[in-house]
Amino acid sequence: MKLVRYGAFGAEKPGLLDANGTLRDLSGKVDDIAGKALTAASLAKLKALDPATLPAVPGSPRIGACVGDVRNFIAVGLNFADHAAETGAAIPAEPILFNKAPNCIVGPDDDVIIPKGSVKTDWEVELAIVIGDGGSYIAEKDAMAAIAGFCVCNDVSEREYQIERGGQWAKGKGCPTFGPLGPWMVTTDEIADVQNLGMWLDVDGVRVQNGSTKTMIFGAAYLVHYISQFMQLDPGDVITTGTPPGVGLGFKPPRFLKGGEVVTLGIEGLGTQKQNFVPYKG
Amino acid sequence: MKLVRYGAFGAEKPGLLDANGTLRDLSGKVDDIAGKALTAASLAKLKALDPATLPAVPGSPRIGACVGDVRNFIAVGLNFADHAAETGAAIPAEPILFNKAPNCIVGPDDDVIIPKGSVKTDWEVELAIVIGDGGSYIAEKDAMAAIAGFCVCNDVSEREYQIERGGQWAKGKGCPTFGPLGPWMVTTDEIADVQNLGMWLDVDGVRVQNGSTKTMIFGAAYLVHYISQFMQLDPGDVITTGTPPGVGLGFKPPRFLKGGEVVTLGIEGLGTQKQNFVPYKG
Repeated sequence: MKLVRYGAFGAEKPGLLDANGTLRDLSGKVDDIAGKALTAASLAKLKALDPATLPAVPGSPRIGACVGDVRNFIAVGLNFADHAAETGAAIPAEPILFNKAPNCIVGPDDDVIIPKGSVKTDWEVELAIVIGDGGSYIAEKDAMAAIAGFCVCNDVSEREYQIERGGQWAKGKGCPTFGPLGPWMVTTDEIADVQNLGMWLDVDGVRVQNGSTKTMIFGAAYLVHYISQFMQLDPGDVITTGTPPGVGLGFKPPRFLKGGEVVTLGIEGLGTQKQNFVPYKG
Repeated sequence: MKLVRYGAFGAEKPGLLDANGTLRDLSGKVDDIAGKALTAASLAKLKALDPATLPAVPGSPRIGACVGDVRNFIAVGLNFADHAAETGAAIPAEPILFNKAPNCIVGPDDDVIIPKGSVKTDWEVELAIVIGDGGSYIAEKDAMAAIAGFCVCNDVSEREYQIERGGQWAKGKGCPTFGPLGPWMVTTDEIADVQNLGMWLDVDGVRVQNGSTKTMIFGAAYLVHYISQFMQLDPGDVITTGTPPGVGLGFKPPRFLKGGEVVTLGIEGLGTQKQNFVPYKG
């Protein structure tokens, strides 16, 4: 299934994209694409529905983040060897974990706001994992069953805040609108091999990132296993898994977004995002 | 006001402690001590109630975390000069920010579980800020008005996970049960000077931390101002603000909790906590 949230920001309704690409309403079947609605048992109930019996959604509503009510938005750093190299960092021996503030999550095509005074806002196309059943101390062999699905994330980053403002990356990762998620959450059963998906990002129509999940240092199942040793993963938590080379920080000289740019990005089978980057207006 | 959540884990009811120390039920007046119930407008409504008209809660129910449904549980590192010194770290020029997984929050007297295989579980008595109205880009002079209140937090930490497992402290800060909060959230109007509160922590009845919020490098109002430059603070978000000297990591040789210890801690005017530390049982 491709699960979708549509409608006004903060008042999104649940939906699904049928085999013909028609958006259909899941209101009444599930409250939201969030939390316990993402457990294996809940997804099985949704899968048992005949999409043709669900009302088609008229018009072209705004598409919201494909997961609502996220509590723990975890990010993995430097998870592509060639991206670590472009930023001048060593290849990590274990996954580097940090957090994005969950209220930075927005829809895939919403505007992204360059923070007040920011001069180093950057892009990162990433595969995001949406936790299903989750748990603690999950064995790697059981990890895929603990996942609800996958989606595209732009792990928007402010490099000065992240790196030059005194320790710990969270400072440059959770600014308002820095977490576009979607357009859909694709359930695990529809992804043949999550470690073999092409991924790309364009700035103003020019390709800057062109990679594949096959060069991730730590794959999705390992990450869920690993992170669950340190914290409990709950239904609807999101893990964004790191970016391939081609971020602005890696350009020589570095290149950052000033506002006015259009950023488009996508992952094979998971859909595409398109954001206008706009300066903060106080 | 002293706001309280009481009852079984995950099903806590809202309450308040009256001037005589009697716990009174706020059910029907507010859904939970959480989120929008913590805005200034909502707190003003609760303050207008006559506590004597609220039903006294019979017996001695479990006390839960004093804030429910926390989305962003932010922590400040090395915020006491003498604690930075005991851990061998430099005094930070700007606040160091990291996250605790919000699902690590438990009641003030709940058991704390030593993670599977952990050998470096440590304690940290801290003043926690509960965000009220919150916002982005909050001026320091407006910060106190954006806060709902204060409470005690034990920022339980696993030092191997935090420091020796490959970058970023979040890994050792959000293990299940690592966030006791409470017993009460005391509203800002009842705290004459939040930067002059004694704070202490005992392990098995022996004092190990004995400090005061007056030696914080960055005070509560500054922290709210500062953090709001990097992320939006929402009602019910929690910021725990760093610990004074006396953590196990600072002992020579270092001393950690193995399970079987009783940890008691408190802050002047904010109440006390008492936790049994117990080994993980898989």
